[in-house]
Amino acid sequence: MANIPKEEYFDRIAKFQARIKEAGLDACLVHGTECDFANIRYLTEYWPTFEQAGVFVPAVGKPILLIGPESEKYAHGRNVLPDVMMMLNYRESAEPDYPGIPLATYGDVVKASMGRRKLKKLGLVGTAVMTKPTLDAVAAQLPGVEVVVADDVFRPLRWIKSENELACHRAAFKVCEKAVEAILNEMKPGMTELQVIGIAQREIYANGGDYEGHSLYCFGGDRTSNGISRPTYAKIKKNEIIQLNIGARVHGYSSSIGLPVWFGNIPKQQLALVEFGLAAHKYTIKLIKAGADAASIAKDYTQWGIDQGWGDYMLYGPVHGLGIMETESPWIETTSNYKLQPNMTYQIDTFFTGDGYGLRWERGCIVKEGGCEIMSKKFMSMDYCKLD
Amino acid sequence: MANIPKEEYFDRIAKFQARIKEAGLDACLVHGTECDFANIRYLTEYWPTFEQAGVFVPAVGKPILLIGPESEKYAHGRNVLPDVMMMLNYRESAEPDYPGIPLATYGDVVKASMGRRKLKKLGLVGTAVMTKPTLDAVAAQLPGVEVVVADDVFRPLRWIKSENELACHRAAFKVCEKAVEAILNEMKPGMTELQVIGIAQREIYANGGDYEGHSLYCFGGDRTSNGISRPTYAKIKKNEIIQLNIGARVHGYSSSIGLPVWFGNIPKQQLALVEFGLAAHKYTIKLIKAGADAASIAKDYTQWGIDQGWGDYMLYGPVHGLGIMETESPWIETTSNYKLQPNMTYQIDTFFTGDGYGLRWERGCIVKEGGCEIMSKKFMSMDYCKLD
Repeated sequence: MANIPKEEYFDRIAKFQARIKEAGLDACLVHGTECDFANIRYLTEYWPTFEQAGVFVPAVGKPILLIGPESEKYAHGRNVLPDVMMMLNYRESAEPDYPGIPLATYGDVVKASMGRRKLKKLGLVGTAVMTKPTLDAVAAQLPGVEVVVADDVFRPLRWIKSENELACHRAAFKVCEKAVEAILNEMKPGMTELQVIGIAQREIYANGGDYEGHSLYCFGGDRTSNGISRPTYAKIKKNEIIQLNIGARVHGYSSSIGLPVWFGNIPKQQLALVEFGLAAHKYTIKLIKAGADAASIAKDYTQWGIDQGWGDYMLYGPVHGLGIMETESPWIETTSNYKLQPNMTYQIDTFFTGDGYGLRWERGCIVKEGGCEIMSKKFMSMDYCKLD
Repeated sequence: MANIPKEEYFDRIAKFQARIKEAGLDACLVHGTECDFANIRYLTEYWPTFEQAGVFVPAVGKPILLIGPESEKYAHGRNVLPDVMMMLNYRESAEPDYPGIPLATYGDVVKASMGRRKLKKLGLVGTAVMTKPTLDAVAAQLPGVEVVVADDVFRPLRWIKSENELACHRAAFKVCEKAVEAILNEMKPGMTELQVIGIAQREIYANGGDYEGHSLYCFGGDRTSNGISRPTYAKIKKNEIIQLNIGARVHGYSSSIGLPVWFGNIPKQQLALVEFGLAAHKYTIKLIKAGADAASIAKDYTQWGIDQGWGDYMLYGPVHGLGIMETESPWIETTSNYKLQPNMTYQIDTFFTGDGYGLRWERGCIVKEGGCEIMSKKFMSMDYCKLD
């Protein structure tokens, strides 16, 4: 079965340490939260719950997993690093006192990690989710240390996937397919959107998923015009588009399949946009290949949409990175500044929105020489849209 | 059906504004994330996905919901406030550029919210989850403004629940009961822990839940000694304790029911700890009543556990706040400094851990005069522990 062997984590850390050195840093402090845990899981397999977590990685020395006061046994049992330290700044947001539990400072961490080596310059990683208690603790407990944002020292490591990572992604798409299939078979008008989500959740866990890939989407009517949204207690109705986006994780690695569906009939203009959306989705797939310039893909897609007469229906996109997070760096935008490389993974996220309706065709791919491997070819046809 | 009417959100904001004034602040900036969204949902019903969110609440003026660049329609459709502004610092952690989408600064927010009134002193709320991009934007975009931590200006508002909030909690516990019952009926040795979680997820959504109440727990053997943990691909085995903790949300309001179960038989010492745990759980319930001193409850519980000869098996606890988050402020700890008030809600979280095993009995309650209302009386007996 798809999985990440223990050695691969140490390999990642070694590569990260080389980049830390190359960047002229003495160490990096990496941050993750319960919902934005990718950085932490990538380096250690650990996935915090309730609490936050960090990884201290020195250019030379021992990497250390940093956790909150409630996770000691959990962290030792799950993460691959032998060294774990508990710190108050990673506690849960209820901010308990935990009287009697011994806690470390960043001074202690540096000593345990780097021994007699000096920490002069520290890079912060995961700054988009790094919280005030951690930032304050760094400032208070590491006086005199120069602290810089170092997301770019770490991020590219996650861009190109190993064979094991790709196997997890492919497995996640297989789980996804089963969840979408169950929904297409069981969803009926009158069910709540949330009840439909329950079908997907059942299938995700029954078939080898270890979590949803993102907040699962099933919503109808006006809300299909939302770029991102959440399901509600509203009931599934006939004669309107329903936006389905179902994602599963396998060993943390994410996936998502999206398509527009409806019971009964939808207005002609909406049907035309659904058809155009599928054409745009297939058009985008053809643009993805090793060596392609990311910005050129986004510009080509946008210009093509305008030329086809649907420019006003485009919001953003058309492609974003896929990894442990279902949406991760790098996006493919008109402002992007890089070239696609083999084994980068992306979600082709084809979203269009009209007045009071919208739709999304979505699936994942792996960049290859001369093209891309689509991780799920199912549900990529108008045949799946009309339900009864 | 249980729900929070729109007026109640405005009532909460009015009360918060009075407290902001009383604290000598001109405004508060409240923060929330995808997984730690309680502050935002409490004030606006909005629940971010992928992105983060804020609420700017002036002592006098208009409250404004602050969102990331992808959520405009979603936020307008869902949240109760008429005013919504998009800001880059609330974007998702992949940090896309979003070329062409117009974004606001905190300077714009202050102007839209406070008009010609001056912002001299700003309180930060939700600082445990407030992230670097927001802290940096406040510093850069509000020069000369004094910024202070103001969690305590907001937190007590969430402590005492309204009748509508209590109705949501009670409904969530009913959903929980169905999920636990389904697990007890369907779980079998050989299933993975994650497959068991799928049963709970199916029932949560089928019966009116709008999300899990927390990362759902089903794990066996050595990992039952984890204070907090996550389910894995490990298989359910006979003759060892399995820790079940299943939580559901209804309209965001959380719940959790926990009990230890096993197939076959467990060693005598473990069985004795399970029995003692249940006695400790019932003992704690009797301590919860309006007017009780929080620290005294924790001290009484701890001393009682020691007197009964199980002091070495206690880790922390014994009670934590319950609300939109399944674990929220305030905890009941030996260092607590407040008295319980009517309609505060708590989880009685009775956790003991031995060498290589542990267990948790857990359910929620509402503080009343002279005692407490237990929100689920099911599964509070040794009769449920042994499965076959």
